[in-house]
Parts: sequence; C-alpha cells; structure tokens
Amino acid sequence: MYPPILQTLIDELRKLPGVGAKTAERYAFSLLKQSKAEVLALAQALVDSKERLHECEICGNISQHQLCEICNNPKRDTSLICVVQEEKDIIAIEKTQHFEGVYHVLHGVISTSKGILPDDLNISSLMKRVNEQTKEVILAINPTVEGEMTSLYLAKRLEPMHVSVTRLASGLPMGSHMDYADELTLIRALEGRKKI
Amino acid sequence: MYPPILQTLIDELRKLPGVGAKTAERYAFSLLKQSKAEVLALAQALVDSKERLHECEICGNISQHQLCEICNNPKRDTSLICVVQEEKDIIAIEKTQHFEGVYHVLHGVISTSKGILPDDLNISSLMKRVNEQTKEVILAINPTVEGEMTSLYLAKRLEPMHVSVTRLASGLPMGSHMDYADELTLIRALEGRKKI
Repeated sequence: MYPPILQTLIDELRKLPGVGAKTAERYAFSLLKQSKAEVLALAQALVDSKERLHECEICGNISQHQLCEICNNPKRDTSLICVVQEEKDIIAIEKTQHFEGVYHVLHGVISTSKGILPDDLNISSLMKRVNEQTKEVILAINPTVEGEMTSLYLAKRLEPMHVSVTRLASGLPMGSHMDYADELTLIRALEGRKKI
Repeated sequence: MYPPILQTLIDELRKLPGVGAKTAERYAFSLLKQSKAEVLALAQALVDSKERLHECEICGNISQHQLCEICNNPKRDTSLICVVQEEKDIIAIEKTQHFEGVYHVLHGVISTSKGILPDDLNISSLMKRVNEQTKEVILAINPTVEGEMTSLYLAKRLEPMHVSVTRLASGLPMGSHMDYADELTLIRALEGRKKI
C-alpha cells in the first residue's frame, strides 16, 4: 500500500486520457524525483489554466483575454470564417500561414452514438456571427463520418444566409502511396480531380 | 500559437516520462475540459506529494511519516532485510503476502553507463543497519545486467558481516512457454533446477 498522499496523486494522474494504473504510477514516481520547484511549477500551471484561460467571446478559441489573439488582430479578414472542430485545429491551420481569415471553434462534432446534438456545440453563436459582410464559411472539420455529418448539417443551416459554404478538399495525402489509400479516399480524390 | 498559460501547461506536462508534444497537448486539452475542482485536486496532490512525502529514515521507502508503515509495524521481522531497487518493488512483494521481514530501498542500481556509483545509492545506511541480529539479507534486485552487478557488489560488501545473503530465484516465469524463453533465462532455470 502506498501512503495515502502518493495514492491520491496516482489516482488523480489516472484521470488523464489513456493513462492507466502503471503509467500513473510511473508519472508519480518521476514527479517525486523531480525538484520541488518543478513540481510546484506544474501545479501552478494547472491552477493558472483553470483560473486564467477561457473561451474567446467571439470564436470559442482558448484565450487568456476576452478575445483571442486572432479575433483581436485587426489585420485578419473577418469576412472569411473557418469552422473547426477543436482549438488545436486552429494551430494546425495557422502553421500553414495560408489563411488570413478568422476561426470558429465548434468544440466537437454531432454524434448520435455519443449523444452530442447540435445544441451541445458552439453553433448558435456561429449563426449569429454570419451576416452580410461574411463572404465565405470554410468548414475545416475532420473528414470522419461524424465530421461529414456535421459539415452537411452546418451547410444546410447556413443555406438561407446566402453565404458561400466550402469544405476542405479530400484526397490523397501528399507523399502517400495510392495502393495504401482506402477506397473512400480514392473516390474523393477521383471526384475532386483537377486539371494540371 | 497557444496562449502562454496553455503553452506553459503543455511544457510542464512534457516533463513527465515518455510524454512528447502531442501527448502533452492531449493531456492539457483534457484538463481544460475537466471541472475546476478536478484540476485543482490534481494540483493539490502535486503540492502535497512534494511537501508531505519523504523517505523513511530507516529503509528509504516513501512515507508520510518519519518511519514508513512497514518499519513502524512491530510485527515485522527486522532480522530479515529485503533489498529492492525502487519503492514500487515493495508493493509488488507485499502483494504476495509471503514476506514478513522489512525492506531497504536502494533508489536505483549501479550503472557505469549512466554514471551511477555505489555512493549515489542508499547503500551506506544498509551497511549500518545490518548487525548481529540480522539473519538474512535478500537481494530482490531486477535480474538485469546492472541489477546483477549491484547484487554482486552488495554480496561482497556484506561478506565480512557474516550474514546470509540470498537473491531471488531466476527461471521461467509461471505460465510461460520454454520455446519463447531467452537463453540466459533457460540457463538460470537449468542451474536452479529442483527436485520435485
């Protein structure tokens, strides 16, 4: 039996995604070996993340302020709204340096199996955001079954607003081999073929 | 770019063993989705583990008090000392309910490649502990190259003390298949063969 304090730490670490008893134990013992300053820094980072991070009032992105860096940047083109599933998808798109518009984070996708309905997602604020100034809504949602369903749902909801709704191209990932691609990806790649 | 507070949390989580950038990110976002109470509980567990856990003054086991539960238990046989590499090895042996003696934690093994010398381990206090009352020192150190080296070193150091020094049997693990066993394990199993 571990001392109760150590057992509590192990139990708390087990709540991290994909962390089982053995991994939590390994983390706990590694933390015991770290310096007090390092462990307290992690504890402080946890407290700060809960007390000082919140959702951007406009787009739902994670932020230290009322508005996120992107919504707060006057250089961004607010007529171009890119809808993503999670905050980290923003980072992925920002890394490309090929998007000048703004984002909208859904915080998930519609999932009948998990009981996630449109009302559980950050959709109503998207509807309020889209107006005459909006030129295009890009649906950058993962091309999974649930992601596709969510894209179709959003496209339908946005239809009466007379705004151009697009989605990211599906096809072969760069550097991949055709014989390893699944059928659905190949069908999408064929459908989306372009003149060179 | 993540907000600095989130980035700090990700950086701190990356210090856990075997945690890379992607996993740290996944942990951080999962923590952001957890309730404030849960995250603060983890932060508190971290602080407590550093401020209230220390090594048992006798055996080096992790403890909330000056002496660990085992050293503090008058029913344990102090003439039988089981030497282990890490605190968690004690838990493994305690689970068997087949050991009534006490423990001594080395906090590692001698490793020339990692530059860990006998002086870096909890060995001198073991030497002070072993006396005329000690009947047996069981070396329950992992049967790895470095563990074996450490066992041999300790056996030599304990030799002048006229105490019985034993080590755990090596051989085929229960439920295993002989054709999958490595050569060294088979050699040990043969050498250690016993009459039925």
